[in-house]
Amino acid sequence: MTLSKTQTQTTPTQIRLNARPKGMTNASTWHITQDAPPALEDGDLRVSVEYISVDPAMRGWLDDVRSYLPPVALGEVMRASGVGHVLESRSAAFAAGDAVFGMTGVQSEYVGPAKGFFKIDPRLAPLPTYLGGFGSTGMTAYFGLLEVGQPKAGETVVVSAAAGAVGSVVGQIAKILGCRVVGIAGGADKCRAVVDEFGFDACIDYQNESVAEGLKKHCPDRIDVYFDNVGGKILDTCLTRLALRARVVICGAISQYNATERPAGPSNYLQLLVSRARMEGFVVLDYAKQFPVAIAQMAGWLTDGKLKFSEHVVDGLDRFPEAINMLFSGRNTGKLIVKV
Amino acid sequence: MTLSKTQTQTTPTQIRLNARPKGMTNASTWHITQDAPPALEDGDLRVSVEYISVDPAMRGWLDDVRSYLPPVALGEVMRASGVGHVLESRSAAFAAGDAVFGMTGVQSEYVGPAKGFFKIDPRLAPLPTYLGGFGSTGMTAYFGLLEVGQPKAGETVVVSAAAGAVGSVVGQIAKILGCRVVGIAGGADKCRAVVDEFGFDACIDYQNESVAEGLKKHCPDRIDVYFDNVGGKILDTCLTRLALRARVVICGAISQYNATERPAGPSNYLQLLVSRARMEGFVVLDYAKQFPVAIAQMAGWLTDGKLKFSEHVVDGLDRFPEAINMLFSGRNTGKLIVKV
Repeated sequence: MTLSKTQTQTTPTQIRLNARPKGMTNASTWHITQDAPPALEDGDLRVSVEYISVDPAMRGWLDDVRSYLPPVALGEVMRASGVGHVLESRSAAFAAGDAVFGMTGVQSEYVGPAKGFFKIDPRLAPLPTYLGGFGSTGMTAYFGLLEVGQPKAGETVVVSAAAGAVGSVVGQIAKILGCRVVGIAGGADKCRAVVDEFGFDACIDYQNESVAEGLKKHCPDRIDVYFDNVGGKILDTCLTRLALRARVVICGAISQYNATERPAGPSNYLQLLVSRARMEGFVVLDYAKQFPVAIAQMAGWLTDGKLKFSEHVVDGLDRFPEAINMLFSGRNTGKLIVKV
Repeated sequence: MTLSKTQTQTTPTQIRLNARPKGMTNASTWHITQDAPPALEDGDLRVSVEYISVDPAMRGWLDDVRSYLPPVALGEVMRASGVGHVLESRSAAFAAGDAVFGMTGVQSEYVGPAKGFFKIDPRLAPLPTYLGGFGSTGMTAYFGLLEVGQPKAGETVVVSAAAGAVGSVVGQIAKILGCRVVGIAGGADKCRAVVDEFGFDACIDYQNESVAEGLKKHCPDRIDVYFDNVGGKILDTCLTRLALRARVVICGAISQYNATERPAGPSNYLQLLVSRARMEGFVVLDYAKQFPVAIAQMAGWLTDGKLKFSEHVVDGLDRFPEAINMLFSGRNTGKLIVKV
């Protein structure tokens, strides 16, 4: 699983899907290859991949089921977004030296169509920020909250996985909009960060206190928007505290992604009826055309000191298999990124 | 439980909540009284109650839990909507002889505030129709489908409990709007009625065939609107066949109302994410101000022969306890009404 000392950065390296996991991924899920990339064709780029994004959604791409993207095929390079610099371009839109974002895959060098890649500005923010706050996690927070949750000033917004890459940004944007914001996170350290670093009004430590009691205490006017990153029991508990016409944003269900049995459904879903509420899913890629607008607005908030991004960088492409499991055990703090 | 022969129509009779049921209601849930109604005060009406509506929502009113209305108190006359004629009025808005609709309760004579009552026109439709098609079931179908489901011509609408009072109207309105309409119902007779009487394009018999297979066959373009009256496994199966941006209307969950354990949640709710779909609850009373507009439009469809209402009248106030359980065993065909 680890690269030998003789393998240098200049040897192109790929992490491929070896076997579909049941439950958590393990060493046998992956295999590493050092294949020479193909020759460039018209419209192609060669990109030196410098940082790779590690996302909960990756777990879903490993299962052979219908989803919003086809599953990663056995033997295929693991799908991932990444950032780096163009080494060679046969696309009129890019030149060698451009900093770019795209679906690079988990590999040190990408060769393939320029389609879907776009230039990024390393002066606005360092490269890894384009995988986090300006990348899929920040965009997920931004569009999930604003387009699906539609919070209004004065409303109460509750966010699970509040210390995480998505949750921490959701809460900060909700604060900027004038909402009361309550987080749910696991452990005293994470809860402290949620309140002290990210400025939430309160945070419920689900490992050490009752979420139901915490919601009663911190959401006296109930919940107008619940941004759900976790599913399972926490979702079910939040459903019992919805305000009239509440919006439940289904962003993910990290507690269920490695389930080998059917996941538990939210048995309190009939509270949607009582509260005339809605529960709605979304896929951030649907908003891709609006990403530049969101990045521009978030860059402004970043400059004004109203927004902080939390990143957790794991050093070394060969540590990707370890990194993806960190997500599901809650061991990462902030957006998880592998430095190639 | 039954009235003695000496009790005549002229003796005011009330059916009161005696004990909160666990699971299905039974004889001990109710007790019958023959109390003289109070004297009229200013603003009150005395109404001879002629027909009473029996609705699935009644089961929820018996449990001592937070809902959109407070639970019926022990000893209180069972809550119900009803129609009848005004016998005596101390409200300027009504005169003796007026046909009215209101929350009469399960009793032969209502005395109390005129608030919430409104006049109905017996020339437009017979009195029981104001409890069915022009009453809460028809209004539930109309507003649930149009306001929450928002179907467009050419879309596929799936309705569970399709032979029922709500489902049959939902499907007929969806057909009027130009949708492809597929019902789900229990048994060959009900399925035949759904297609032949109510004009659905197809009906899946969940007692004798696979709902998943039926949906694949009859919804080649997947489901744009699923109007859920039943919850449970059928809801879960429908979630796996949603089209992009589908709307799931949570109208009720008759399969779960008598559950003594926590109801099963829809474990496939993450399909909302894959399909960018929403699941939304509603309470028909929220649309009360728009009821006259809906009734006028439905009266037009009725006259044009585009809409049929199916009613199931049970004769005798004392048969209310039997009638309410018919709802949950699927023994009624169409809107269930007790004739006083």
